[in-house]
Amino acid sequence: MNQQELEEFRKYREKMNAEILGADHLGIKRFFNLDTQAYADGALDAKTKEMLGLVASMVLRCDDCIAYHIVRCAEEKVSRSEMIEVFNVALVVGGSIVIPHMRRAFETMGQLLPE
Amino acid sequence: MNQQELEEFRKYREKMNAEILGADHLGIKRFFNLDTQAYADGALDAKTKEMLGLVASMVLRCDDCIAYHIVRCAEEKVSRSEMIEVFNVALVVGGSIVIPHMRRAFETMGQLLPE
Amino acid sequence: MNQQELEEFRKYREKMNAEILGADHLGIKRFFNLDTQAYADGALDAKTKEMLGLVASMVLRCDDCIAYHIVRCAEEKVSRSEMIEVFNVALVVGGSIVIPHMRRAFETMGQLLPE
Amino acid sequence: MNQQELEEFRKYREKMNAEILGADHLGIKRFFNLDTQAYADGALDAKTKEMLGLVASMVLRCDDCIAYHIVRCAEEKVSRSEMIEVFNVALVVGGSIVIPHMRRAFETMGQLLPE
Amino acid sequence: MNQQELEEFRKYREKMNAEILGADHLGIKRFFNLDTQAYADGALDAKTKEMLGLVASMVLRCDDCIAYHIVRCAEEKVSRSEMIEVFNVALVVGGSIVIPHMRRAFETMGQLLPE
Amino acid sequence: MNQQELEEFRKYREKMNAEILGADHLGIKRFFNLDTQAYADGALDAKTKEMLGLVASMVLRCDDCIAYHIVRCAEEKVSRSEMIEVFNVALVVGGSIVIPHMRRAFETMGQLLPE
Repeated sequence: MNQQELEEFRKYREKMNAEILGADHLGIKRFFNLDTQAYADGALDAKTKEMLGLVASMVLRCDDCIAYHIVRCAEEKVSRSEMIEVFNVALVVGGSIVIPHMRRAFETMGQLLPE
Repeated sequence: MNQQELEEFRKYREKMNAEILGADHLGIKRFFNLDTQAYADGALDAKTKEMLGLVASMVLRCDDCIAYHIVRCAEEKVSRSEMIEVFNVALVVGGSIVIPHMRRAFETMGQLLPE
Repeated sequence: MNQQELEEFRKYREKMNAEILGADHLGIKRFFNLDTQAYADGALDAKTKEMLGLVASMVLRCDDCIAYHIVRCAEEKVSRSEMIEVFNVALVVGGSIVIPHMRRAFETMGQLLPE
Repeated sequence: MNQQELEEFRKYREKMNAEILGADHLGIKRFFNLDTQAYADGALDAKTKEMLGLVASMVLRCDDCIAYHIVRCAEEKVSRSEMIEVFNVALVVGGSIVIPHMRRAFETMGQLLPE
Repeated sequence: MNQQELEEFRKYREKMNAEILGADHLGIKRFFNLDTQAYADGALDAKTKEMLGLVASMVLRCDDCIAYHIVRCAEEKVSRSEMIEVFNVALVVGGSIVIPHMRRAFETMGQLLPE
Repeated sequence: MNQQELEEFRKYREKMNAEILGADHLGIKRFFNLDTQAYADGALDAKTKEMLGLVASMVLRCDDCIAYHIVRCAEEKVSRSEMIEVFNVALVVGGSIVIPHMRRAFETMGQLLPE
């Protein structure tokens, strides 16, 4: 994603998460909590877990999830060369079908971790 | 997988990989090399990369791949509590559809990393 | 999808379905018929079947299919709270990877079934 | 699944669920709770929700999940002709790739809902 | 699949297809017809179409579908080296997650097209 | 894709591939080479292989991959009626979830192979 797409994604994500949580469905609210907690420091640190979230998002080919985890990885100090290694594992596991998502992932990474 | 299933998987994997590589298709042989190299120490260490391979295999729900990466994770000294955190990320990202694979993953882990 | 995206989807769907059917491939035309008939009243009523189509589209993460079945569910008098329960089943089965699609699904639902 | 496979699945599921929950990971335990609650009577009744779980399991092609939801559907009084309609929606949405799973689903259904 | 597994698959497939068609659901019966017709000679010949069915089955990772299309490809005179090229395209498109299925595919191919 | 979308895809693909390869990760560069070589004339000709790539992309539902292989198929002299047969196999194997991608595929085909 380029800078504008990334900003729009962030706004849309925030707005719609508020709407979803506002619907006050107990199961959905608890799922969102579980989702947040899954990436908190524990037996593995948050940095490692965000890389796990990123590679899982890439092989499942979800652009929004990929963008989100790239942002979080950058916050957790994943370096550019480390992130590219995550991309490579995703590529080998998931195949060429991952490439279009890797293109957008490289662009997103470029906003946050310039060369 | 229980001990016998894990042993059969190892033998079958070894036998059929030999047969596949014996077919001498250049593209396939190079892919197998890339696959091996993707998990070697680099900007990320082998331990982290094996956990990436494990979570990717779980969300894509490939039992053989999961068993393979659990074996490799154990070799790279991923602890039981670290591995369970990888399982949890896979569960949250991939949903309840991951649970049948997590059952077999717990059994496989039990062969290698007893409580 | 917001109102404009939903309208564009409807137009594009109509236009391209006409073009596809105009190609006059017997197999494709029969498939389109089967697809329509699968949601007609039968042993299960159309309302239930549209909810089945919706949850299947969500776990397979197809935004166009989701939008289509939300429209059809609303026509079959699926209520807002019923639809949110369908979303919740999709979320639990399919995991956090469903969330970006649920965001767009909530927006689409908002066009048709305001709070 | 035939009768023996179904019985083995039930035992293995029970045994490994106990082992997974015994690992006492808070996130995993909460996920299992969410999973159970997603199918409880609410805005939609348990019968409808189990059919939603079944169709989602079929298009995602998870044999264990399919068997589990067929058992639960039968308990919730889904009839044979209703269940076959769920299979048909899964087939149309998911394509011929669903057929091998539908074969096993028909066999499982036959244990519980004979003609 | 080895010879015995392949034989069991053929018998199970035949038996359950009869049971499915015997349920006399119009939609399901029509789908089975469409499925058969999709691989008949037309603008593309049956040989090419069976290779299309094989590669699609491999990237979707359905072992039964793969075995079925390998049998049909062999009947349509796809050679061993042609089939290995289909495997390679599936491997590159679908990634290492395809490898466990390619192992079984090589074994199945060995029953029908010995070196 | 319409003409403008197709042109934007081509430019974005070229630009980001250059950026990805410029990152100089040996594994990624080798994967890109393998990807290119998988479609070169061999035991199967490039035309057949591009149709294999197209059907695989359709059942995996990757719009960029579909557009790319439609362009390459047209260059390899796949005719309009042959391409529609590939679409039909993808539809039968992958189900109605393929339809939104087939809509865009028909539009892309129309840029290159007008009726």
